[in-house]
Amino acid sequence: LSAALRLGVAGLGTVGGGLLKLLAEQGKALTGRSGRKISVVAVAARDRKKDRGVDLSKVRWVDDPVALARDPEVDVVVELMGGSEDPAKALVEAALAARKPVVTANKALIAHHGVAIAKLSERHGTPLHFEASVAGGIPIIKALREGFAGNRVDSLYGILNGTCNYILTTMRETGRDFADVLAEAQKLGYAEADPGFDIDGIDTAHKLAILASVAFGVPVNIGAVHVDGIRNLSLDDIRFADELGYRIKLLAIARRTPHGLEQRVHPCMVPNNTPIAHVNGVFNAVVVEGSSVGRVMLEGRGAGAGPTASAVAADIVDIARGVSLPVFGVPTANLARLPAAPTRRHQGAYYIRLVVLDRPGVLADIAAALRDAKVSIESVIQRGRAPEEPVPLVLITHDTEEARMTRALERMVKLDTVTRPPTLIPIEQL
Amino acid sequence: LSAALRLGVAGLGTVGGGLLKLLAEQGKALTGRSGRKISVVAVAARDRKKDRGVDLSKVRWVDDPVALARDPEVDVVVELMGGSEDPAKALVEAALAARKPVVTANKALIAHHGVAIAKLSERHGTPLHFEASVAGGIPIIKALREGFAGNRVDSLYGILNGTCNYILTTMRETGRDFADVLAEAQKLGYAEADPGFDIDGIDTAHKLAILASVAFGVPVNIGAVHVDGIRNLSLDDIRFADELGYRIKLLAIARRTPHGLEQRVHPCMVPNNTPIAHVNGVFNAVVVEGSSVGRVMLEGRGAGAGPTASAVAADIVDIARGVSLPVFGVPTANLARLPAAPTRRHQGAYYIRLVVLDRPGVLADIAAALRDAKVSIESVIQRGRAPEEPVPLVLITHDTEEARMTRALERMVKLDTVTRPPTLIPIEQL
Repeated sequence: LSAALRLGVAGLGTVGGGLLKLLAEQGKALTGRSGRKISVVAVAARDRKKDRGVDLSKVRWVDDPVALARDPEVDVVVELMGGSEDPAKALVEAALAARKPVVTANKALIAHHGVAIAKLSERHGTPLHFEASVAGGIPIIKALREGFAGNRVDSLYGILNGTCNYILTTMRETGRDFADVLAEAQKLGYAEADPGFDIDGIDTAHKLAILASVAFGVPVNIGAVHVDGIRNLSLDDIRFADELGYRIKLLAIARRTPHGLEQRVHPCMVPNNTPIAHVNGVFNAVVVEGSSVGRVMLEGRGAGAGPTASAVAADIVDIARGVSLPVFGVPTANLARLPAAPTRRHQGAYYIRLVVLDRPGVLADIAAALRDAKVSIESVIQRGRAPEEPVPLVLITHDTEEARMTRALERMVKLDTVTRPPTLIPIEQL
Repeated sequence: LSAALRLGVAGLGTVGGGLLKLLAEQGKALTGRSGRKISVVAVAARDRKKDRGVDLSKVRWVDDPVALARDPEVDVVVELMGGSEDPAKALVEAALAARKPVVTANKALIAHHGVAIAKLSERHGTPLHFEASVAGGIPIIKALREGFAGNRVDSLYGILNGTCNYILTTMRETGRDFADVLAEAQKLGYAEADPGFDIDGIDTAHKLAILASVAFGVPVNIGAVHVDGIRNLSLDDIRFADELGYRIKLLAIARRTPHGLEQRVHPCMVPNNTPIAHVNGVFNAVVVEGSSVGRVMLEGRGAGAGPTASAVAADIVDIARGVSLPVFGVPTANLARLPAAPTRRHQGAYYIRLVVLDRPGVLADIAAALRDAKVSIESVIQRGRAPEEPVPLVLITHDTEEARMTRALERMVKLDTVTRPPTLIPIEQL
């Protein structure tokens, strides 16, 4: 047996608590797999009193998490505090500078400072692992960085936020509206008191930027991700989607296009007969299209103490086994500078839901707006008669360019029969 | 850049040809990812004339594949010949003895000689990788050996043979019978001229034994796998399954039970609302249930030049990056000696299809046979009246033990109203 691997853990919330429990239960197995005893020697967390279900009497507590990086008894720093800035950032930087391998679950940190941190990792020859930052227990970083290393990745897409997927699934299954389901999710602890980070797509965007970096070998660039959340989706949209043979999912999509690398997060209509349409509730999934491997899908729990601790533990075992790889799969100097594809060049079909006054000539006006923008219509749902009352009007277009849709919508909103801003949802033929 | 990694490749069939193509197309990317140029310097294959779509003019041909192990210019041996015995076995053994890392796609070799080969790998401190031996492009060995290293795996199951899954999917979708679809699959090249290896479940059993070893940390033991193929499935079974809300899949299942480790391959009824029920055609999928991660599913193409070459290339990149792990995740000395669970102790519900003469008292006799074996009936489908003619009679049981079902069936076959051996398919509540 080699020398023990001594961990300093910063942050003992849900994930930190889950890790301590995992190490207590699977300690022997981890030693068998890595050839080293793995033990927590020091922790930094706000609340020393909280019961985390494991014996912490032999663990040293430190007040300043950054002190873990300088602690001579700590071999590896496990950063589970979260947040893109200090103290998480300072801790990770200090640990790498001290040549202590780092395991982190911090998607905001990697999304905002990934390249700088990867350079530090290279300069000091010290590995940084971040499997837990994306899709919880699904080993997607490992799959991209190692398992698909023989491929040119052409596209990837996925459901990366369990809160949003839970809300969309529950709306569809129960027929309750967004606000109602969100309130319930908050009560159940599936959504934060301030839910914006999840429902506005920001969390998903962080994760997509990280996946895109590893998949395409490009610098993480959260600024290049086009983001739209699920806040404005109505039950009507979910019902029309069902009727048309689709499900609405908040997708993260990254794809090589003739105009550059496209990175976007927004609600999508996905055909009912695709596997991703059936990823429900708090589950996450990632689909990768590789040049040799073809389409591969990985599905599992994207959050929670157990799945996230599973990912953190895998990174710790990798370090114990001496695995050391470039942070994003290639040295930072070799990261490709792919241009960002402008969203207006995005090609695809669209679902448009309008609320219009039921009056003669409405459809003619709408159809003319689309025709003049050179968008052709695949199908229309106009139903229910209520003269002079607002009624929904749903249109599905053929493939077009986003810039044309924008032009058509600009004209539609000026019509006095259109009573509300239209809902536009891209249709993804996956 | 470190020194180039020089490969000796034995076997240039579908997978070998796919690997050469992948290396030609992705060579630069692989160098970027591994920090080393990766090149094929020597090959051994039967047919030197065959066009493999890549330039082999600068590659040295050797007659005896085992010579690759002694070749001073070869750093890594890639064994793609297949077969559990020599020359594949001799080549792998010689390469490890010469401290040359080995990449193999050979499931039969690992299933039959895995432990002995792992010991050789340990003795010489030389890694052996075999990702391509199971489920083609799906990185399931890496997921189990590394990605889920923090878990105790409780069960795994999967669809591991694309030929069988293609046949079952096509029977269901087209309403054609087994023999007809098999003949077509042979014509299309999806099934071998001698299809027994696939349709009798042997190929799946090899793969399951390998997965179970890595997942549960036990010695590979192909002899402990209970195997039954799809040869006797009829279109009737597939139609009744549909009617009852199930799909029939050839599943590989390994599970910890109170009686030991259960390893079995046989047709199963899987509920329509499970993800694995919708893995169709030539796709493979593996579901892993881990103590922390929960349920994770990986789905992708399980065979073919591209997907299999993708797995081989990932192993080569691992070697180029210096990754060296115990063959089955733990040193062979630490492999657990779990007893094999006796199949008669298997618990579950069953589908039984009988062909009986439509005569008064038939159902009473069948029901009595089940009652006396203490098996209780959940539902019965008896339909169509054709006095004194053979008609199908389908029963679904409640959960029971296999030994009881065997007893009940033994009595049924003795009834003179039962005209053919009954079809018994376990129902898996996944």
